[in-house]
Amino acid sequence: MTDSINFHNAQVEDILSLDKIRATLQRMEDTIVFNLIERAQFAYNARMYENGAFPDLQQKERWSGSWLAWLLKETECSHAKLGRWIAPDEYAFTPLQDMPEPILKPVDYPNLLHPHHVNVSSKVLEFYTHKIVPQITEGLNRVSDDHQYGSSAICDVEALSAINRRVHFGMFVSESKFRSDPAAFIGPIQQHDRDALAALITKPAVEAILLERVRQKAEIYGQNLDQKMDDPNREKFRKIQAQEVVHLYKEFIIPLTKEVEVDYLLERLDGLAPDEIAALAQRKPN
Amino acid sequence: MTDSINFHNAQVEDILSLDKIRATLQRMEDTIVFNLIERAQFAYNARMYENGAFPDLQQKERWSGSWLAWLLKETECSHAKLGRWIAPDEYAFTPLQDMPEPILKPVDYPNLLHPHHVNVSSKVLEFYTHKIVPQITEGLNRVSDDHQYGSSAICDVEALSAINRRVHFGMFVSESKFRSDPAAFIGPIQQHDRDALAALITKPAVEAILLERVRQKAEIYGQNLDQKMDDPNREKFRKIQAQEVVHLYKEFIIPLTKEVEVDYLLERLDGLAPDEIAALAQRKPN
Repeated sequence: MTDSINFHNAQVEDILSLDKIRATLQRMEDTIVFNLIERAQFAYNARMYENGAFPDLQQKERWSGSWLAWLLKETECSHAKLGRWIAPDEYAFTPLQDMPEPILKPVDYPNLLHPHHVNVSSKVLEFYTHKIVPQITEGLNRVSDDHQYGSSAICDVEALSAINRRVHFGMFVSESKFRSDPAAFIGPIQQHDRDALAALITKPAVEAILLERVRQKAEIYGQNLDQKMDDPNREKFRKIQAQEVVHLYKEFIIPLTKEVEVDYLLERLDGLAPDEIAALAQRKPN
Repeated sequence: MTDSINFHNAQVEDILSLDKIRATLQRMEDTIVFNLIERAQFAYNARMYENGAFPDLQQKERWSGSWLAWLLKETECSHAKLGRWIAPDEYAFTPLQDMPEPILKPVDYPNLLHPHHVNVSSKVLEFYTHKIVPQITEGLNRVSDDHQYGSSAICDVEALSAINRRVHFGMFVSESKFRSDPAAFIGPIQQHDRDALAALITKPAVEAILLERVRQKAEIYGQNLDQKMDDPNREKFRKIQAQEVVHLYKEFIIPLTKEVEVDYLLERLDGLAPDEIAALAQRKPN
């Protein structure tokens, strides 16, 4: 088995090896499935996602955003002190300029990605709160609001953070594929041809395997082992339905990752001198 | 299936029904197993658990405790604002007097437990950091320190919080059993007879079933679904070994829960007038 990437001690070649990237993305699937199962214990609690729905937050914390955005900000500020957001694979929902500095001396991460402006956190937040949560919390005889705003928001913060990391990880895929054959990318980048770029990084067969693996993980981790194996109602009491997790990946995580991958590639030549680009265009694939 | 207890809308009889309590304890097993699997991705990182091991924490945050204790304090203070520690089933590691007030008007929780002073959080922290983490992170070719102090401490906070809630939940078991037959408990309480109290609340058959169920959960959730099913090395690459989780329950969670249950019962008559105790002693079991 290939281990997940540890950015603290890995070499650039290791981090950008497609095997390492795939192992890391696969391990993230487990985390995402676990987090969704935990969130699905509670009701939708739509109120948590509306700006200003908790007047006490405004009065006591001068916060006019949503309940969830407040907890994201609180949690992400603590994690900023841990140095989380300077790691090359971590993306926050709270703007970086609103967060404190890391406590420890910054880690000297290897130079991995080309400078870029890609950040789709707000799309992740939007889809998660409006599409995913209502779906995974819509169980048998469930109320839509159970008042468990603390517990459910804590789960949201974890699930969002895992999904956001997964989606932005696409840039390592792009960088790895670009480095292995830069010449193939230069034309489509210069012509701003999103479809051609997407085609260069997409492998439908790999996606099909991914969806099947995610279905299997959700199937296995989402079963209710507290019910007897021969209980005819066992399926009804699953912690999560596998097709909901597959849907999340198919309709959202995969397309948004592709968007991130293409957005990143479109900036990949920015700041390079014409002779540097010409040299890349000559390079043989490896 | 019986749902977990929601303290926001449940009646006292519901919360203290043994069926509800058992369903809640069983659901917590899944959370604990998930959290341990997540923590096991990273190295032991013993430095995180030593007071003063990060001089930057002392300089920048005036914190002389451990790295983990700092993150516990940070996280628990945010959760204090969410009202987490006024819920009858939640126990923090940070002293309550060091944490801020809840933002929302306190929920009017039903009166469930007799006033008590039971709190074994420091024992949970001690055992978790010195026994559990070294064990679950001791994998094949693993280093003992991978420098991932942020990621591993975030997992620790979640695992600790889940284990702490589980252990203190024993008080609901005690209260439920006391209410169903108070007369049986009065003698042993007055004689401070811990063994007799433990015998009144312990069912070895239930414990055996619990351990078997936990083993099964760890077995199923801890498998590595990224390896091919017929890979002869598949077992080596499990995310966690089932016997480690069983060991945690057997050697620690169950005995400590029993300690909590007995400690609580020993305070159960405090503050009652002699005629109230006499009335309880007359009550028939139900």
